[in-house]
Amino acid sequence: MKLYDLELSGNCYKVRLFAALANIELDIVPVDFINGEHKSDAMLALNPWGEIPVLTDGDITLRDAQAILIYLARKHDLESWLPADAQGMAEVQQWLSVASNEIQHGPNAARLVDKFGYALDKVTTLGTSERILMLLEQRLSVHDWLALERPTIADCAVMPYVALAPEGGVSLSDYPAVNRWIARIKELPGFEPMPGVE
Amino acid sequence: MKLYDLELSGNCYKVRLFAALANIELDIVPVDFINGEHKSDAMLALNPWGEIPVLTDGDITLRDAQAILIYLARKHDLESWLPADAQGMAEVQQWLSVASNEIQHGPNAARLVDKFGYALDKVTTLGTSERILMLLEQRLSVHDWLALERPTIADCAVMPYVALAPEGGVSLSDYPAVNRWIARIKELPGFEPMPGVE
Repeated sequence: MKLYDLELSGNCYKVRLFAALANIELDIVPVDFINGEHKSDAMLALNPWGEIPVLTDGDITLRDAQAILIYLARKHDLESWLPADAQGMAEVQQWLSVASNEIQHGPNAARLVDKFGYALDKVTTLGTSERILMLLEQRLSVHDWLALERPTIADCAVMPYVALAPEGGVSLSDYPAVNRWIARIKELPGFEPMPGVE
Repeated sequence: MKLYDLELSGNCYKVRLFAALANIELDIVPVDFINGEHKSDAMLALNPWGEIPVLTDGDITLRDAQAILIYLARKHDLESWLPADAQGMAEVQQWLSVASNEIQHGPNAARLVDKFGYALDKVTTLGTSERILMLLEQRLSVHDWLALERPTIADCAVMPYVALAPEGGVSLSDYPAVNRWIARIKELPGFEPMPGVE
């Protein structure tokens, strides 16, 4: 399996992190993001969105970090990380949707402005970040993990851009339970860091 | 099963539509959105996000339309609508993420401005709408359905706010394959309309 990857991308890191925790081997193919390789004809043929990560496995090509997490967990029968029952799978999905919605448009977008110069409305990204951090704090004040009483792909999907939030000017100092959750993930066997999430 | 519902919400309609197509019975509990009932203490206890839909099934409470679609499909073993294999499930997830991200922040957000008076940046919502409509057109020009070669919960998650896009000032006239896809869904046995999607 090949992962088309950018080291500084939190979306790519979601996949690298889960693969490391679940002991899944990936061939990392670095994409030259600064020179726009993700928008090249070859990459657009793999993913019309012009985004990374992209995973290929034989004839199969997948975009979207959340879809790739599902693929890896199901392919390797890792029901601890993604349960197969209706309730467990739905509990995980609630947080995959948060990763695609509030996390993407909150802390991820704020970092895109500050670190990569994207022309997004910073005030909106900060408001979305504060709201989702309060909801995360509420959940994590009474549970150790997001979806279930153990780590799942939900934690791998949400943690990266939360931990990277200070790079977008979003302080985590008012969210003690969120900080304890990030530390808990860092203590999992096989944990792999990225620049900004050491 | 109870669905806490608003008739004019596309997110609630995703669930009502799938339940109708899959012949799943739901007790509909109307929520008085105009008077803010979704932010009442009773509703916040069910969903701290203060959003609808919410599904309850005995002790189980779920928020997020995409998670509710997964729950209903898995609970009723509807593998035609949500496959259990790694590739099929990931192909569906790619579009559930689109529903939470580009559809939410494109046509849904544009409609929130025009129809419900939300103070969002209309120009940004129109740009996001145009981009995702072009990507949908590209996919649907060569496939009848979004994720697989048959209808899945991906179609139920994405179609509502696409069909409602004109209520947010987003024209669908340049997207013939998208229009054919909407018509195809309306012809499915059991199809249920909503105001704006007749």
